[in-house]
Amino acid sequence: MKALVTGAAGFIGSSLTDRLLAEGHDVVGFDNFSTGQRKFLESACTSRRFQLVQNDLLNFDALADAMEGIDFVFHLAANADVRFGTDHPRKDFEQNTIATSNVLEAMRVRKVRRIAFSSTGLVYGEGRVFPTPEDAPFPIQTSLYGASKSAAEGMISAYCEGFGFQGYIFRFVSILGERYTHGHVFDFCKQLFAHPDQLNILGNGKQRKSYLYMQDCLDAILMAIEKVDAKINLFNLGTDESCEVNDSIRWISEHLNLSPHLNYAGGDRGWIGDSPYILLDCRRMRGVGWIPKFSIRDGIIRTVEFLNQNRWVFEKR
Amino acid sequence: MKALVTGAAGFIGSSLTDRLLAEGHDVVGFDNFSTGQRKFLESACTSRRFQLVQNDLLNFDALADAMEGIDFVFHLAANADVRFGTDHPRKDFEQNTIATSNVLEAMRVRKVRRIAFSSTGLVYGEGRVFPTPEDAPFPIQTSLYGASKSAAEGMISAYCEGFGFQGYIFRFVSILGERYTHGHVFDFCKQLFAHPDQLNILGNGKQRKSYLYMQDCLDAILMAIEKVDAKINLFNLGTDESCEVNDSIRWISEHLNLSPHLNYAGGDRGWIGDSPYILLDCRRMRGVGWIPKFSIRDGIIRTVEFLNQNRWVFEKR
Repeated sequence: MKALVTGAAGFIGSSLTDRLLAEGHDVVGFDNFSTGQRKFLESACTSRRFQLVQNDLLNFDALADAMEGIDFVFHLAANADVRFGTDHPRKDFEQNTIATSNVLEAMRVRKVRRIAFSSTGLVYGEGRVFPTPEDAPFPIQTSLYGASKSAAEGMISAYCEGFGFQGYIFRFVSILGERYTHGHVFDFCKQLFAHPDQLNILGNGKQRKSYLYMQDCLDAILMAIEKVDAKINLFNLGTDESCEVNDSIRWISEHLNLSPHLNYAGGDRGWIGDSPYILLDCRRMRGVGWIPKFSIRDGIIRTVEFLNQNRWVFEKR
Repeated sequence: MKALVTGAAGFIGSSLTDRLLAEGHDVVGFDNFSTGQRKFLESACTSRRFQLVQNDLLNFDALADAMEGIDFVFHLAANADVRFGTDHPRKDFEQNTIATSNVLEAMRVRKVRRIAFSSTGLVYGEGRVFPTPEDAPFPIQTSLYGASKSAAEGMISAYCEGFGFQGYIFRFVSILGERYTHGHVFDFCKQLFAHPDQLNILGNGKQRKSYLYMQDCLDAILMAIEKVDAKINLFNLGTDESCEVNDSIRWISEHLNLSPHLNYAGGDRGWIGDSPYILLDCRRMRGVGWIPKFSIRDGIIRTVEFLNQNRWVFEKR
């Protein structure tokens, strides 16, 4: 097939692009390089089956042009800076919600019908059921990021109903792995590489979160697309484990052979709209035959190793 | 207080404006007159406490100007043409979702903190629990209209969490009453006034819906704002009854003393994204002390009477 990957130069987008090319597909990568990295596409760019479009999803005409002849859209582009949402309230809305509206309209105009979308477990707001299933009680949004992704989900579903699209919506926990360039492991490593004896922590370190290793995430996406064929296919993606921020700190410190002094900002939330506990019920995806191969600890260690060997990523942000 | 009413020239907006003025409040009415009617504001315009701003919510600067000195925003403006969503896929998104983003940003910039929002029972998609409570299972959106309103709800909640707003979100069933200018009673009356012997009906007439009389709806909104004071206050608004489209046809025909031949288009849905059954659980709002005074039949008859005496409204659309 010929796939369009939005956010192709990003953490997950570039890894998916490499996998799709390795499986023999043609890929058009679309990225505005606001946070994407050219270096992540070095391997892809050596393939004659890869085409790069450097443009913005808010540029509808460029997007519609890129959609020509596409069989499947992997819509991964997003503002993923969850915790700085209140610093620039329009950013999540423009880059996640309006951008998704443009993707859907460009698909409709170019008669492209299949889309996979990277949503987030943050659409559950502060969950009341743990582990949280896909049909948890109708949530109250607590972050601009969660609200912007939930809005995008709703539009995708409405296009499936109204225009015969087929949608695959994946609600991710935090994804870890090679090419990871934001989030808490990134922040901790950045601090520890600069000052190995000190670590500043948002909140009280007791926030419990679930994480998933990137290749396990891609396994699930590709398996769902191959094996499941409903009009709207909605899956939580995570491990069955959760860990405290404090566990993560211990694993990172041990791996780097450091004993930093820990300075906690305090409070049970890292930032406004942060959820103190995230654990998704992923039985629906497991029912398709998917089994994540890596533990949270594995994912964290692999991320630390990547960051340790690619310190250039810290200078890019 | 000084209130801003968006969609002030509309069915519900103009009626709310009249009530707020009667209660002694100052009102700024904001409307682009795309579907609003100047005639509905004739009474309001005689008050020195009323100010009309003719502009579009997509014009951010005009909206921010209108927000100056406002204590409370009633955000009622919307594209309410639910069933033609797939004819112009951007309209719901622009007029409901982007417009709401603008309202919230204009409030934030002008330090206005309280908002009431007219959402819809269609955010539940095809409900699985009847009557449907506010915390029903996380729905799959089935219409562009429902998706656009759900997106707006999510943003309002996120602004409450992130910027100290206080939000009142009301999920309406279909509202009926004087100044009603769209929906099935409007369509039926329009047909019957032109051709009293024939009536064309979308679907099979067996769709069950719930309706609420407009003054009962306004009672609930004003009561909730006065009596409930949480950060986010979310209420279904409807009667505890539902009726079939066929009941509605019988009541309308009896009231007009007509026996039209009924031509059914067939199928269990009136249009793409239509829900064959809507009934909301309104116990939460009743718990505040609200009791709707009018039955569905009362609301339908009052609407027919208004349309019968104001046939000019059919020429305006």
